[in-house]
Amino acid sequence: MADEGHDCLVVTDPCNIYYLTGYDGWSLYTPQALLMFQNDDPVFIVRNMDCAGVRMTSWMPDGAIIGYGEHLVQSAEGHPFSIVGERIEETLGAGAAKIAIESESYYLSVRAFQQLQQKLPNAIFEDSGLLVNWVRFIKSEKERTLMREAGQLLTNVMLRTVDAIEEGARQRDAVAIAYAENITGTADFGGSYTSSPAFFLAGDRIKTPHLPWTDEKIATGTQINLELMGNRLRYQCTMGRTVFIGDPPKKLVELEQIISEAIDEALSMIAPGMTCHELADFFLLFLKSRGIEKDSRCGYSQGIAYPPTGGELTASIRRGDHTVLREGATMHLLPAIWSDNTSIIISEPFIVTETGAETLCDAPRQLFIK
Amino acid sequence: MADEGHDCLVVTDPCNIYYLTGYDGWSLYTPQALLMFQNDDPVFIVRNMDCAGVRMTSWMPDGAIIGYGEHLVQSAEGHPFSIVGERIEETLGAGAAKIAIESESYYLSVRAFQQLQQKLPNAIFEDSGLLVNWVRFIKSEKERTLMREAGQLLTNVMLRTVDAIEEGARQRDAVAIAYAENITGTADFGGSYTSSPAFFLAGDRIKTPHLPWTDEKIATGTQINLELMGNRLRYQCTMGRTVFIGDPPKKLVELEQIISEAIDEALSMIAPGMTCHELADFFLLFLKSRGIEKDSRCGYSQGIAYPPTGGELTASIRRGDHTVLREGATMHLLPAIWSDNTSIIISEPFIVTETGAETLCDAPRQLFIK
Repeated sequence: MADEGHDCLVVTDPCNIYYLTGYDGWSLYTPQALLMFQNDDPVFIVRNMDCAGVRMTSWMPDGAIIGYGEHLVQSAEGHPFSIVGERIEETLGAGAAKIAIESESYYLSVRAFQQLQQKLPNAIFEDSGLLVNWVRFIKSEKERTLMREAGQLLTNVMLRTVDAIEEGARQRDAVAIAYAENITGTADFGGSYTSSPAFFLAGDRIKTPHLPWTDEKIATGTQINLELMGNRLRYQCTMGRTVFIGDPPKKLVELEQIISEAIDEALSMIAPGMTCHELADFFLLFLKSRGIEKDSRCGYSQGIAYPPTGGELTASIRRGDHTVLREGATMHLLPAIWSDNTSIIISEPFIVTETGAETLCDAPRQLFIK
Repeated sequence: MADEGHDCLVVTDPCNIYYLTGYDGWSLYTPQALLMFQNDDPVFIVRNMDCAGVRMTSWMPDGAIIGYGEHLVQSAEGHPFSIVGERIEETLGAGAAKIAIESESYYLSVRAFQQLQQKLPNAIFEDSGLLVNWVRFIKSEKERTLMREAGQLLTNVMLRTVDAIEEGARQRDAVAIAYAENITGTADFGGSYTSSPAFFLAGDRIKTPHLPWTDEKIATGTQINLELMGNRLRYQCTMGRTVFIGDPPKKLVELEQIISEAIDEALSMIAPGMTCHELADFFLLFLKSRGIEKDSRCGYSQGIAYPPTGGELTASIRRGDHTVLREGATMHLLPAIWSDNTSIIISEPFIVTETGAETLCDAPRQLFIK
């Protein structure tokens, strides 16, 4: 903030709010803002009924938690960000303050931003450049423990779900197990809700990654692509696997071998100092050498997650992204293939260690044949 | 659109996209836009890898589905809404077109809107006034069937979850049942993921509505406030109930009687033609006559739901909202009480019929004592 001369950062991404304050609440569907001032203490503006939740779970003192009234909730007449604007003006004055916003946040609406602009006509608004997201990129020891716990949850989720997939079973029964297993958790700890639905794409739907499961049963000859999550106190791991019921097509088995080999090699290669670009380059060249063209990302940084995404929006494993992998970064390595003819998902979440990569899950890295 | 002179409506709310096209995909975490033109056919702009999903599940012809490249996904350099802007200009020209946006949509970021403004410097941007959301307010016969099915799912979810709540049980085991029961569904159909987490607030957390469940066990003397959901093909019902383990405080039993009586009376009173204001007024006066002050909404319109909210953002049951309840409106009647000293949630989802109100669920309208 000091480097950019920002007097105030308006934090609306709930991942960043959680990271900075400890508050984890579903008040996010109504407007809320954490104001980080360059020269003053932070202030959190939130719906009246949610103030108690902030008091109970964040480190913020009572005086820093400002509630707004119900008449401003989903109303055409008023808007909570008029209160946010007023609070900024009270603190910084009516001059040309430089204010950073998270312009790609799902939880800062255009209307909310317009309210700020109206209330602060002399202010200069700039993008925060994902400032807090980038701070989150490297996990502390405590955060690494939470990511490992999320990985433990996810291992169980994946294995139990694959177990439940069989000829004649209903898709929904397998999906229900994925949800229940994450939440029930281990003997020591449970899971939290995930930032995306479980992805369970069967039959024709394997051509695409983001459609929901259906009411259908699972028939012999069906391929199923799974992307499942484990979430521990909002720290989330995602992992993908492909399952085939019956004798898999030769092409699919070939892809399994190529992808598994690529991930094996990548994991043995990763070390602090490597860039995302270099890792992507390795994958794309490896796949190309086997006759496969891939244009989507080979993965992304993951950590704290609220809907609608498990990615941190910062580092992507793709060409041109020169982010350096450092100790404590937690990535989802996802060299998935989708094409009109075939697809396969075998992925691996990992943490960058002092010397290499430590996988966060422990599910066989293979095509499951049932 | 014609009334407002809007040449193009940029639809980004996934509920509205689903309603207008039939496409239900989790591509929503990357920018996407359905362009509804006044004088041209609609166009849907979506990430390349999701085009297949749109083709498979919407009515839209192939030529109307425009994919954008991976290099635009979560990139500081480019943005998918530059493509959206170009497409609008191709169709409407570079003049002063009037373009409506959904300025309160969670899925239109400030940065996306800024891209549109840059690409279309002569365009006039206005708010859509929740145009499509308001069309969704009255449900067709088919939609009413889906809401009734969501209600059936929710009845089972609530009863099974209350069943699982007992002294010594872990919170997470009860919550896992809420999730699994919705998805597993009935013999005839299953459920879809919900737009919010299950709310399970126990002990001290009953002072506030939106905190997550914890790893704790349930002890005697604990109150638990539940808000749970059933979701059928994205049509969602929400309902709340309070559970007490052991002998409930006298105050809580009094509140149960007041709230139950208020809901009974309201349901017998509701008829097409009544306004949200009148319904709220009845509740607030009823509660006041029993010595209770309430300032939050007494409910809202519900229907298609994607995270982060189950509300349609249109009608609220509160004073000053003069929306007329008409046949086919589906509402969540939620006269919940939260205060520093006590709280209770007993709510009821209903559909406005030709003559009155039909409840969508069938769970006893009471405080559950375990």
